[in-house]
Amino acid sequence: MYAGKTKEVKVDRLPMEGVKNTAIQWLISEKEGAKKFAMRLVSIKKGGAIPLHSHPQIHEQYVLKGNGVIFTKDSERELSPGDFVFVDENEAHGMRNTGDEDFDIICCVNL
Amino acid sequence: MYAGKTKEVKVDRLPMEGVKNTAIQWLISEKEGAKKFAMRLVSIKKGGAIPLHSHPQIHEQYVLKGNGVIFTKDSERELSPGDFVFVDENEAHGMRNTGDEDFDIICCVNL
Repeated sequence: MYAGKTKEVKVDRLPMEGVKNTAIQWLISEKEGAKKFAMRLVSIKKGGAIPLHSHPQIHEQYVLKGNGVIFTKDSERELSPGDFVFVDENEAHGMRNTGDEDFDIICCVNL
Repeated sequence: MYAGKTKEVKVDRLPMEGVKNTAIQWLISEKEGAKKFAMRLVSIKKGGAIPLHSHPQIHEQYVLKGNGVIFTKDSERELSPGDFVFVDENEAHGMRNTGDEDFDIICCVNL
């Protein structure tokens, strides 16, 4: 068993071309023995966004705080705390903060 | 892509022998196309607990609300919002609400 506190986890800039004002913390990953999937906290700051992108991994997300949208090539959906999202393999998606506070999401991904 | 609101998801009693005052909502599961892992919201009410148990699946958990503990056969750890826990395969664990409000946890599990 491994437990920790989010505020003690290293904060990185989300490493993706075109990303704006977005931080990522890897809460549980292979380093902690999680071989199947990882848990990250993604924080999209005011005015921040993650551009449309796709990858073979799925996402399972839970909105903790703030307001934003998740978008595909031709649609978008508003998100607020308590909302959850499943993004399938190779499904193009992006996210954007539409509010005044941080838009924080738990984002799990298979490894 | 599939998105939803936690408050619109069916609430079940956690089906386990010895469990007390604990609800579970399956937010993302095989029904939504998630073949690799599922995301649930587990709510341990005041005075509630999940007894020591083990299974071949791992857990990755994030505490949303309230106060409680996760325990093994010979230790326990206090948890509060923003804490996260990795439980490995076949590792015996249980949880208990130690506060006055609901102790709510996002609990992911491989399928």
